[in-house]
Amino acid sequence: MRAVDIIMKKRGGPGNPRGAELSREEIEFLIGGYVAGDIPDYQVSSWLMAVFFNGMTFAEAGILTDVMLRSGKTIDLSGIEGPFVDKHSTGGVGDKISLPLAPIVASCGVRVPMMSGRALGHTGGTLDKLESIAGFRTGLSVPEFRDYIVKCGFAMTGQTKEIVPADRLLYALRDVTGTVESIPLITASILSKKVAEGAEALVFDVKCGSGAFMKNLEDATGLAESLAGTGKAMGKRVACLITDMNDPLGEMVGNFLEIEESLDILEGKGPADVTELTLALGAWMVVLGGKAATREEGLERCRAAVASGEARRRFLENVRLQGGDPEKLLAERGIRRSPHHAEFRAPADGYIQGIDAYLTGLAGVHLGVGRNRTDEAVCAEAGMRIRRKKGDAVKKGDLVMDVWGKDDDSLAPALDLLSRALRIGAEKTAPVPLVLREITAV
Amino acid sequence: MRAVDIIMKKRGGPGNPRGAELSREEIEFLIGGYVAGDIPDYQVSSWLMAVFFNGMTFAEAGILTDVMLRSGKTIDLSGIEGPFVDKHSTGGVGDKISLPLAPIVASCGVRVPMMSGRALGHTGGTLDKLESIAGFRTGLSVPEFRDYIVKCGFAMTGQTKEIVPADRLLYALRDVTGTVESIPLITASILSKKVAEGAEALVFDVKCGSGAFMKNLEDATGLAESLAGTGKAMGKRVACLITDMNDPLGEMVGNFLEIEESLDILEGKGPADVTELTLALGAWMVVLGGKAATREEGLERCRAAVASGEARRRFLENVRLQGGDPEKLLAERGIRRSPHHAEFRAPADGYIQGIDAYLTGLAGVHLGVGRNRTDEAVCAEAGMRIRRKKGDAVKKGDLVMDVWGKDDDSLAPALDLLSRALRIGAEKTAPVPLVLREITAV
Repeated sequence: MRAVDIIMKKRGGPGNPRGAELSREEIEFLIGGYVAGDIPDYQVSSWLMAVFFNGMTFAEAGILTDVMLRSGKTIDLSGIEGPFVDKHSTGGVGDKISLPLAPIVASCGVRVPMMSGRALGHTGGTLDKLESIAGFRTGLSVPEFRDYIVKCGFAMTGQTKEIVPADRLLYALRDVTGTVESIPLITASILSKKVAEGAEALVFDVKCGSGAFMKNLEDATGLAESLAGTGKAMGKRVACLITDMNDPLGEMVGNFLEIEESLDILEGKGPADVTELTLALGAWMVVLGGKAATREEGLERCRAAVASGEARRRFLENVRLQGGDPEKLLAERGIRRSPHHAEFRAPADGYIQGIDAYLTGLAGVHLGVGRNRTDEAVCAEAGMRIRRKKGDAVKKGDLVMDVWGKDDDSLAPALDLLSRALRIGAEKTAPVPLVLREITAV
Repeated sequence: MRAVDIIMKKRGGPGNPRGAELSREEIEFLIGGYVAGDIPDYQVSSWLMAVFFNGMTFAEAGILTDVMLRSGKTIDLSGIEGPFVDKHSTGGVGDKISLPLAPIVASCGVRVPMMSGRALGHTGGTLDKLESIAGFRTGLSVPEFRDYIVKCGFAMTGQTKEIVPADRLLYALRDVTGTVESIPLITASILSKKVAEGAEALVFDVKCGSGAFMKNLEDATGLAESLAGTGKAMGKRVACLITDMNDPLGEMVGNFLEIEESLDILEGKGPADVTELTLALGAWMVVLGGKAATREEGLERCRAAVASGEARRRFLENVRLQGGDPEKLLAERGIRRSPHHAEFRAPADGYIQGIDAYLTGLAGVHLGVGRNRTDEAVCAEAGMRIRRKKGDAVKKGDLVMDVWGKDDDSLAPALDLLSRALRIGAEKTAPVPLVLREITAV
C-alpha cells in the first residue's frame, strides 16, 4: 500500500472526478501511519485537501473517526452503570448550557461524561467558566472522572493529551493548510473526542449564525446531517439541534457571570431563550439515554429535575467534588464583578433588531472573557450583562449592557465593538425561534 | 501575507467554489518561499491539490512559470543573434524527432537552444540517444552551449541543477502527493524549463494515445491549449501539434537505432510517419522564428534543408563539436547491434490493427533502451526495428520486428510484451493522420 495511491483514490481523475470511497485499511494506513510518524505531513495535507473537495461518505467518515479515536487512550467507563450520553456545542457566545444541562440530565438518570474545551477567538469555553469557581479542578484523572460520575451523575474535565492525539495532529495541520472547513473532517474531529470519552449517544447543538462556525442554515444542516449520519454509521444514537447564534445566548457573557446564569437556570429563573434551549437539549439526552419514550416526556422530566431542586443540588455537589466551595460560590452571586465597569447605552430610539454575536464575542476577548491565543489567561470577573435584547424597545440613553473589563483600557475597544454589534431600527422585530431544525439518527 | 490565506484563496469555499486568481505577489510568496525553505512542503502540497481541483488561469500559470524559472539560473544567449526557437515533446516511443529537427531548422536560419531529458518508464530520452554516439557530451557548460549554437545553429544539452530548481522540488512533491496530473502544473513545469533555456518561441509536440502521458484527444487538447495560452500570457509565440502516440513513431525504437533513423530522415529516406512529423514541426519552428511567412513556406524550407544536405552536414558538425566522431558514427550504421537478438514474428494472418506504443515502450525498458529508475544505465545497442506497421498485411510467421536486448534474459519478457502489443485483425485498417490537431497562440 502506498500513501500516494490512497491520495489519488480520494482525489479521483477524469471519468471519476469525485474520487472513490476509501477502505478501513487505507484510512488506517494513512492516518495511523501519520500518527506513528511513518507518513509525512505533506502527503496527509494533500489528502486533506482532496477530502475538502470530494468529501467522504458517512461510512468513510465513521472509519476515519474510529481510526482517530483509536490513536490514543479512551476513557474506560466499564463497571459503571450507564446510559452515558453527552452534549456537544459547535461553539457560540453566551453558551453556558453545558453547566446547567449536565446536572439536569444526570438528575433524570442519564450519566454525562463531559469533556470540554477552552475559550478561543470569539467563542467561550466551558473549562474557563468552571475555573472561575475558586478551586474548581478541570484536570481530572480517569479514576476521579469515574468517581464523580458515580457520585453525582456527571463530571466535567478537559481533554488530556492521551485522548485522540490524531485529532491534535490533524487539526494543527488543517489549520495551516486551508483544510479546516471540511464537513467530514470537522465531523471526525468532533465525534472522535466524544466517542473516546465514553458517550454511547450524543446530542449536538449545531450553532448557526454570525457568532457560529456555521454562518447559515445550509452549512449547519450539512454538518448536522454529517454528525448524525456518521454517528449512526458508528452505531451511536445521535440528535442534532440547529440553533440560532446570531445573537448571544441568555443575558450573561463572561466566565463567572455565566456560572451565575447557570445557577439561575437551575433555579428556574434563567432567561427564556437559554432556559428553553437547555431543556430542549436535555429532553433529547434523556430520550437517547432511554429514560423517556418521547421528547415531550423527556422535557417533563428535565423540568421536574429543575423544579425539585435536584439538578441544583447535583451541580453544587459536583462543584464540591471537583474542588470548589459551593457556599463561597453562592455568596459571590451578583457581587463578584471586575471593578473596571462601563455602561453601554442605546445611541437612538427604536427596536433592537439584533446584537451581533460575533462582535459581542470579540468584545469579550478584549474584556478578558476569551483569548486569541491558547496560552493567554482569561479574567473570571470580566464580561457583559445584556439588559435589552433583540425585539426590545429602547430609548436613546437606555442601558443596554453592563460591561466589566479585566482593566480600564479594555473597556473602550469593547464598547466600540458593541456599538457596531447593536442594530436599532424602527420596526419591531418578530421573535425568531431558537431551535431552527432538528436532525436525528437514532 | 500568510501561506494559508493563499491556499484558501485558490481553494475557494461556499459561494466561491472555484477559488480566485492568485496575484504575482502571492505566487511569489508561496513558491519563492518554498524554494527558499521558508514555506513548508505540507502547505505547498495542499495548495497543489487545490490547484489540481480548481485549476489556474493562463495568466496565473504564466506567473507560476515565471516565478519557477526565476528560482534558478537562466541561459544567457545575449550577444548571439536569434531567433531562438525550441521544440518540446511530451514524450513517446520511437520519438527521435529532436535529433533531425534541430539541424533542419538550424539550416533555415533559426537557432535551436535545446535542453533534453533522459528515458524514464516507457518513454525514450534524447540524451540517452545522443550518448549512444561514442564520445558525445550532453553536459555542456553555458559557454560551450553558446559556442555550438553560433557554430552550427543548435546545441543539445541536459538540464543542469541550476536550471529551474523550483521544478525539481515541486515535481518531487507532486509525485508523492497525487498532484502530477494537473494541466497548469504540467504547463508551468514544461514552460519554465523551455523559457529558462532561452527560447523565444516554442513548438510543442503533444503526444496523445496509449504511449503518451495524455491518453485521449480531450486531455491532450487541454494541455495544448494551456501551453499555448500560458505561453502567450508570457509573451512567447507558441504552436502545439497534437499527434498520435498509439503506435511507435518510425521504425526504430532504441538509442543508437534512433540515431541511425535520424540520419535516414536527414538523408530524405526516413519512414514516412516520422519524416512527415519532423517536417511539420520544423515548418512551425521556421514560421515562429520569422524565417517563413506561412507553414507551407516553412515546410518548403525544411525540405530544401534536407535535400541540399545542409541539415545532415550540421548534424554531423554538431556531433563533432559535442565530442563525437562523425566518421565512426557513419561506419557503425546498420552494423552496431547487440549480439542478443530475437525475431518477433506474426502469430496469425491478417492486417496489423496496431502495435501498442505503451507496451512497446515497456518492452524497450526490458531490453535496456529505457529505465525504470533515473539511476539505471541504458544499453546503446538494444532496441527494436519495426518491419511491419499498422495497416500492413501479414502472414503467420512473417517478421514483424527485429529485437535486440542488453542480454539474452531480456529478450523473453520483451517478446511477451510485444506479443500483447501487436493486434492482428481481419480488416484492413484505414490510415490515421499523425497530426490530430493544431493549436497555436502567436
